[in-house]
Amino acid sequence: MPKISNTGKNMPESPIRKLVPFAEKAKSKGIEVFHLNIGQPDVKSPSCALEAVKNNTIEVLAYSNTDGSESYREKLANHYFAKSNIKLKAEDIIITTGGSEALLFALGSITDPGDEIIIPEPFYANYNGFSSSLSVKIIPITSKIENNFALPDIEDFETLITSKTKAILICNPGNPTGYCYSKEEIQQLAALVKKHDIFLIADEVYREFIYNKGAKHHSILGDFGLEEHGILIDSVSKRYSMCGARIGYLISRNKDVLTTAKKFAQARLSPPTYAQIASEAALDTPTSYFDEVIVEYKSRRNLLIEELNKIEGVKATKPMGAFYCMVELPVDDAEKFSQWLLEDFSDNNQTVMVAPAAGFYTTPGLGLNQVRIAYVLKKEDLKRSVELLKIALSKYKN
Amino acid sequence: MPKISNTGKNMPESPIRKLVPFAEKAKSKGIEVFHLNIGQPDVKSPSCALEAVKNNTIEVLAYSNTDGSESYREKLANHYFAKSNIKLKAEDIIITTGGSEALLFALGSITDPGDEIIIPEPFYANYNGFSSSLSVKIIPITSKIENNFALPDIEDFETLITSKTKAILICNPGNPTGYCYSKEEIQQLAALVKKHDIFLIADEVYREFIYNKGAKHHSILGDFGLEEHGILIDSVSKRYSMCGARIGYLISRNKDVLTTAKKFAQARLSPPTYAQIASEAALDTPTSYFDEVIVEYKSRRNLLIEELNKIEGVKATKPMGAFYCMVELPVDDAEKFSQWLLEDFSDNNQTVMVAPAAGFYTTPGLGLNQVRIAYVLKKEDLKRSVELLKIALSKYKN
Repeated sequence: MPKISNTGKNMPESPIRKLVPFAEKAKSKGIEVFHLNIGQPDVKSPSCALEAVKNNTIEVLAYSNTDGSESYREKLANHYFAKSNIKLKAEDIIITTGGSEALLFALGSITDPGDEIIIPEPFYANYNGFSSSLSVKIIPITSKIENNFALPDIEDFETLITSKTKAILICNPGNPTGYCYSKEEIQQLAALVKKHDIFLIADEVYREFIYNKGAKHHSILGDFGLEEHGILIDSVSKRYSMCGARIGYLISRNKDVLTTAKKFAQARLSPPTYAQIASEAALDTPTSYFDEVIVEYKSRRNLLIEELNKIEGVKATKPMGAFYCMVELPVDDAEKFSQWLLEDFSDNNQTVMVAPAAGFYTTPGLGLNQVRIAYVLKKEDLKRSVELLKIALSKYKN
Repeated sequence: MPKISNTGKNMPESPIRKLVPFAEKAKSKGIEVFHLNIGQPDVKSPSCALEAVKNNTIEVLAYSNTDGSESYREKLANHYFAKSNIKLKAEDIIITTGGSEALLFALGSITDPGDEIIIPEPFYANYNGFSSSLSVKIIPITSKIENNFALPDIEDFETLITSKTKAILICNPGNPTGYCYSKEEIQQLAALVKKHDIFLIADEVYREFIYNKGAKHHSILGDFGLEEHGILIDSVSKRYSMCGARIGYLISRNKDVLTTAKKFAQARLSPPTYAQIASEAALDTPTSYFDEVIVEYKSRRNLLIEELNKIEGVKATKPMGAFYCMVELPVDDAEKFSQWLLEDFSDNNQTVMVAPAAGFYTTPGLGLNQVRIAYVLKKEDLKRSVELLKIALSKYKN
């Protein structure tokens, strides 16, 4: 039998999706599963986006421009200026198949096998997948649940930088932490990457979702002097509740990065055409849509944290943004517990699915008693989900 | 300034798309450009596929299943059996974002950086891109224009196999050659990969497009005993003239390959949702659609070859399938000529764009006087395109 590669063997399973077969089995037994494991919002996509696709007049569903449709990129550039005061040209933007592909192009453009990327952990688990697929090593720097996952000391970053370090990667606001970096924290990171002449990659796909008064999103493409060092990853998935579109963007003002990333883009021909129609139209989403969504997520967050912290032995941080929350459970092995929830537990024919958090860390042994919970369900379901967790914990024997 | 990776520097530009800026410039001067460079058919997509998208009732554009929608994969499995007598289960199929992603997952699953893949050249240029991005080395074996690009002697393959060889990759029928492998040729390849316990990857995206009487497509998943060794790459792009959908599939009966490829799939979450709706509906395309398309392509091929061979010094092979043709031109450097066509030539405000063929070879020096021509335009335009080539060649000074 021919062999699988080491790269393939070492590819991690997504902690968000690896328990799906157990969920399917539970469902096949007639059990209702509340999905707190995945950031799939129940929020309706903007009608202007959905209608644009329904009203399309395509006769030949042709390749688009490799970098994405010209008109979409022009509008995006205007949008960044109008919304965030960030000046961009259409050619600074490459439309990708999801933020995922943007990250893959960014890493491919700046790393070779064996190179290193520093990432504050816990981090979005799929960063592991992309790094593995390119044989790039993630060097974690641990952010602490006690500090609400704030940026670790910048000196601690510096001790990790070697000749193999090609970038620091942050997610802001953070998935799974919900932490939103302050202006000072971004300034520190900017100074550090410039000093060592490495890249700062920022995944800013949750930037609209900030709930704390006074907290503000600071894009690395703002006033931080990162013209040569900054690579922005963005996506329509969460912003417009259009995860299934698969549209993201890589943005940089570094011409070499753009030229190189465009070669990766050429190899895969073009991003999906229908999804670009939806995404371009989504730029016309009225502000009221976001206002309502933010109010809804904020009240979900508040409810979730309040209810979770009522359970004995459970410790939930209060995320400033995004729609995830890291939760410490009174169990030894959160993955076993998560599987048990699907395989052996139900109450009134219902159970709950969570993402075991160890997969969001790379330091062995960390996050073993933590899970990530996405608050993407309506409050009634969230409340019942926490109740289910409480009952389950009372029945579960470590 | 932080540095681009060697991987990034070594990523080849697509020979199909690298001259696009020159074409844009020509168009901005008011010149009409006939695109023979790219396999973007002018054929209408099946109305059942287009209507399905227009009639969708999506309210939340959600992630699909990582492996692609269950119902689509079920129908696809039935379709393979009905059309090609190939027995598959839904779980043997992973829906990907274009055939491109299927190939990326296949290579990622079976190769590590420094490993080798043997490919008969000339081959689809983007194989270079995917291999480069994974730091995998392509070992070319030259097929000859004199033999109409038939499979090179199987003994010549064998001399290239080393401990680093992980697979042989073929495209059948071939892009850019149009060659359709005989049953005996596939049998030889099958015996060889089994003997050396390596994989046979077949890109069969053009399998419907065969024009020669007696020529028949033989899938590697047919009766060749490749259950453990075969990986099939497929796509809706050409079959249904839906290049912009970005839907392909990786198919294998090797469980390890599937398990591994699914981890790559998890990292990028899911294939695009709208495109899956179109592609699932496209399975209901009536046979008459293909009958008409094949008749049309065949007559385009015949016209193109006849007209090309009338030009002094031009040698065009007669492709058995797909919709490309490799053409030898009486020029020293076909890339310079192709660029000249866009930059400095026009007749009656029209010119023609072709793909210089050197990028379809990896052996240095090969294909320098060849171009790839896609016969994806209507006959009237094809005829004018060849006329333009003829006029251009008479004016061009090497």
